[in-house]
Amino acid sequence: MTKTFQKDEQNITLLMMNFIGKHILSATALSKEEIERILEVAKEMEPFARKEKVSDLLKGKVLATLFFEPSTRTRFSFETSMVRLGGSVISNYMMKETSSVKKRETLYDTGKVVSAFADVIVMRHPERGTVAELAKGSMVPVINAGDGPADHPTQGLLDLYTIWKQFGTLDGLTFGMVGDMKFSRVVHAECALLKHFGKSRFVFIAPEALKIPQELKEELESAGHEVLETEDLESVIGTLDVLSNTRIQEERFESHEDYEKFRGTYSISADLMVKAKDSMIVIDPLPRVDDQLKIEVDEDSRAKYFEQVTNGVAVRMALLALVMGRG
Amino acid sequence: MTKTFQKDEQNITLLMMNFIGKHILSATALSKEEIERILEVAKEMEPFARKEKVSDLLKGKVLATLFFEPSTRTRFSFETSMVRLGGSVISNYMMKETSSVKKRETLYDTGKVVSAFADVIVMRHPERGTVAELAKGSMVPVINAGDGPADHPTQGLLDLYTIWKQFGTLDGLTFGMVGDMKFSRVVHAECALLKHFGKSRFVFIAPEALKIPQELKEELESAGHEVLETEDLESVIGTLDVLSNTRIQEERFESHEDYEKFRGTYSISADLMVKAKDSMIVIDPLPRVDDQLKIEVDEDSRAKYFEQVTNGVAVRMALLALVMGRG
Amino acid sequence: MTKTFQKDEQNITLLMMNFIGKHILSATALSKEEIERILEVAKEMEPFARKEKVSDLLKGKVLATLFFEPSTRTRFSFETSMVRLGGSVISNYMMKETSSVKKRETLYDTGKVVSAFADVIVMRHPERGTVAELAKGSMVPVINAGDGPADHPTQGLLDLYTIWKQFGTLDGLTFGMVGDMKFSRVVHAECALLKHFGKSRFVFIAPEALKIPQELKEELESAGHEVLETEDLESVIGTLDVLSNTRIQEERFESHEDYEKFRGTYSISADLMVKAKDSMIVIDPLPRVDDQLKIEVDEDSRAKYFEQVTNGVAVRMALLALVMGRG
Repeated sequence: MTKTFQKDEQNITLLMMNFIGKHILSATALSKEEIERILEVAKEMEPFARKEKVSDLLKGKVLATLFFEPSTRTRFSFETSMVRLGGSVISNYMMKETSSVKKRETLYDTGKVVSAFADVIVMRHPERGTVAELAKGSMVPVINAGDGPADHPTQGLLDLYTIWKQFGTLDGLTFGMVGDMKFSRVVHAECALLKHFGKSRFVFIAPEALKIPQELKEELESAGHEVLETEDLESVIGTLDVLSNTRIQEERFESHEDYEKFRGTYSISADLMVKAKDSMIVIDPLPRVDDQLKIEVDEDSRAKYFEQVTNGVAVRMALLALVMGRG
Repeated sequence: MTKTFQKDEQNITLLMMNFIGKHILSATALSKEEIERILEVAKEMEPFARKEKVSDLLKGKVLATLFFEPSTRTRFSFETSMVRLGGSVISNYMMKETSSVKKRETLYDTGKVVSAFADVIVMRHPERGTVAELAKGSMVPVINAGDGPADHPTQGLLDLYTIWKQFGTLDGLTFGMVGDMKFSRVVHAECALLKHFGKSRFVFIAPEALKIPQELKEELESAGHEVLETEDLESVIGTLDVLSNTRIQEERFESHEDYEKFRGTYSISADLMVKAKDSMIVIDPLPRVDDQLKIEVDEDSRAKYFEQVTNGVAVRMALLALVMGRG
Repeated sequence: MTKTFQKDEQNITLLMMNFIGKHILSATALSKEEIERILEVAKEMEPFARKEKVSDLLKGKVLATLFFEPSTRTRFSFETSMVRLGGSVISNYMMKETSSVKKRETLYDTGKVVSAFADVIVMRHPERGTVAELAKGSMVPVINAGDGPADHPTQGLLDLYTIWKQFGTLDGLTFGMVGDMKFSRVVHAECALLKHFGKSRFVFIAPEALKIPQELKEELESAGHEVLETEDLESVIGTLDVLSNTRIQEERFESHEDYEKFRGTYSISADLMVKAKDSMIVIDPLPRVDDQLKIEVDEDSRAKYFEQVTNGVAVRMALLALVMGRG
């Protein structure tokens, strides 16, 4: 099983140049070559992400994390990546007051100002398009750590990295995605990234009201992939190489009642895992806040969601290094 | 006055091994040999805690501080310890949102995830047993920085360190503990640690309603110590080697009225200090929020509570180094 | 254009000694020689502030930022300065709970305790005099990052630095200050610092109700400067070397109605800039939260407010280095 993508030396150099100073705003904006390069650099970062080696690659560099909604997990992942490469972090923990109406400046101005302090900015915000807005003002690379329902490119990349590490390829696999296909930015980011690779089969498993958007389906099909839809996880699990689980998130619904209707539709249990291939892997962005992914599955060697945490550090190390020209 | 505990070389090596990867969850779980080892390593850490020397002992290591209730003082102490030994820190300052009902994962899962980022975790939480719960999921050492009324082992250790530095021993002393003997986790941690050492006398000074728990008293007695109880500080102060002051904390009472009854029962003043031995020391975990410990006492060379802040850094440096195998 | 102030070698050494361990509490407390020294060290810090060079000058040193009101911009500036010189930061992001009535200790005690952890403290607080109060307890230098309406010396210093970089001197210039002359601590700090230098002309441009305080005016006049007052920016803009813009801040008014009366009185636009000298510069402490400083002016090379962000890092690097004896 070969773990590198084919390309010649000259291309690598061009690709690396291509990342320097670049914003990482959206999964859809990345080319196949860029995705491959990120995954390859992530692989080089593994010993540092796994705490086996210490690095000074980003010594003297400063990361500003601007989180306008809480996400300790994602922030920790980026900050860990930065400090394990020898860099430093400044962080806007006062986000609420900062964004108060009384004293609010434009995100453009914030980008101007924070980029005078930092060498790279990682931003999360509950509203679509806000990260791109800040990036317009920024003189340094900005990485999108989730802008509401819109995008979450680094989560998608770490999912691809987990799959690639397991199978040695991103071509010709059967991806099962279960949960909220309509609103999940994780699923959308995964599809936007995976569509660049060789013919695969995408099986979207969701209740009628949370079906995959038609455009996304067509996009995958026109890229040469096969797309299947079902409401029944059990009937398809035996065909999958990857089971990508996403929560049915209350915050995406208009009322608690609407949410309750879909809660508990799916359950990944030890019983279910018996029906899956021995080589299938289960991935999940976490946190686990309901019974959709049962604790008993943790013991199964096919459960990769905790390993994904470390993979996320490797991928974010790769991105930080690449956009600052140290990839 | 000898400042080292007796043991042979082989034991030291075994002890050090004993700490690697170990959680520090409770004062009661530490053996005499472990306590002595921590104090001895703390002594080696003094020049770094006192800002006289710079260290790279923990370079490349990452501490995650997870504080689910505010305690700037304790968090600063651990974070200072970490960065002065060359390590880095990530911190969950969004604790409230993070622990919201909407998106709550189990502490076990949090332990799994955060331990993928960090090399050591320091956690504080208002509820008993929560730190142990997170530790179950963690792949790296977890240090308890206070779990509600239950325990606060590092505060107890820094109190012992302060006493040991002063007297060169922890045997045969008279300890006066004044304030809230019933609820104070600091007093309980001190007793759990001190009971391992040679015959001492414990004088518990508290109003009837805040008396020392019977079990704790019996535990000290069966370990060979003498235990006295009184409501009157003035009558016993002349006999004490150590006066350990603890606040009567409003948050431990059911109503403001219940609290007001006990407030102001004791007052450590310059007048009172006249009646104490020249060699007696006053210790206090701070903050000072009422009149129980008068400002005028700060000038007295027997007042050690501000020196304790630096001692706390030395002790926490020792613990961080020991659990990561650098002691 | 000479960019250094005249003085002999012996004086420099004396001045440097003068800063070690010193608090920076107020613009009014700084002598001409001290101001000059700070600006000269800031100039040496420029390559580090501009991210052109990496420094280990403050390796092993710890900065504690104590912000009792939010100001991400100012905190980022200090923290960036510290980490770019190789130092570390601890930060009291829990400020609200920390300062709760229930558990409040005096600022004197906080100074005692935090100075046991840190090598330098930077503090911001909404109330006048609070920083000086904490400084009384502190065993390490304390820098005022704004204490309510009272003072904000580092903002004043970075404004002077921006002017000095532009003109090579602080003597004989015409300073136009527009906006809130009555409450703006930035304007007051600028005047307190500039009054030490050779005869200049100060033009205060404000509505009647926000006029410059009489004492400040007299202070400048008795120091040999010329002082003019007007309500009309347009009529004087052609005479200015520096236009220092300050927001008319809602929080300084008793009611929203009072504030609305003065909002929008002034507008710095491309049209207005046509009437200004080619060599005039526009400075502004930011954030920009209203229309007083139009976005179209950003393109004008005379607009220095974003460059001021980097200048602020250089000045704060200088102060951190000087008070810790590394200037």
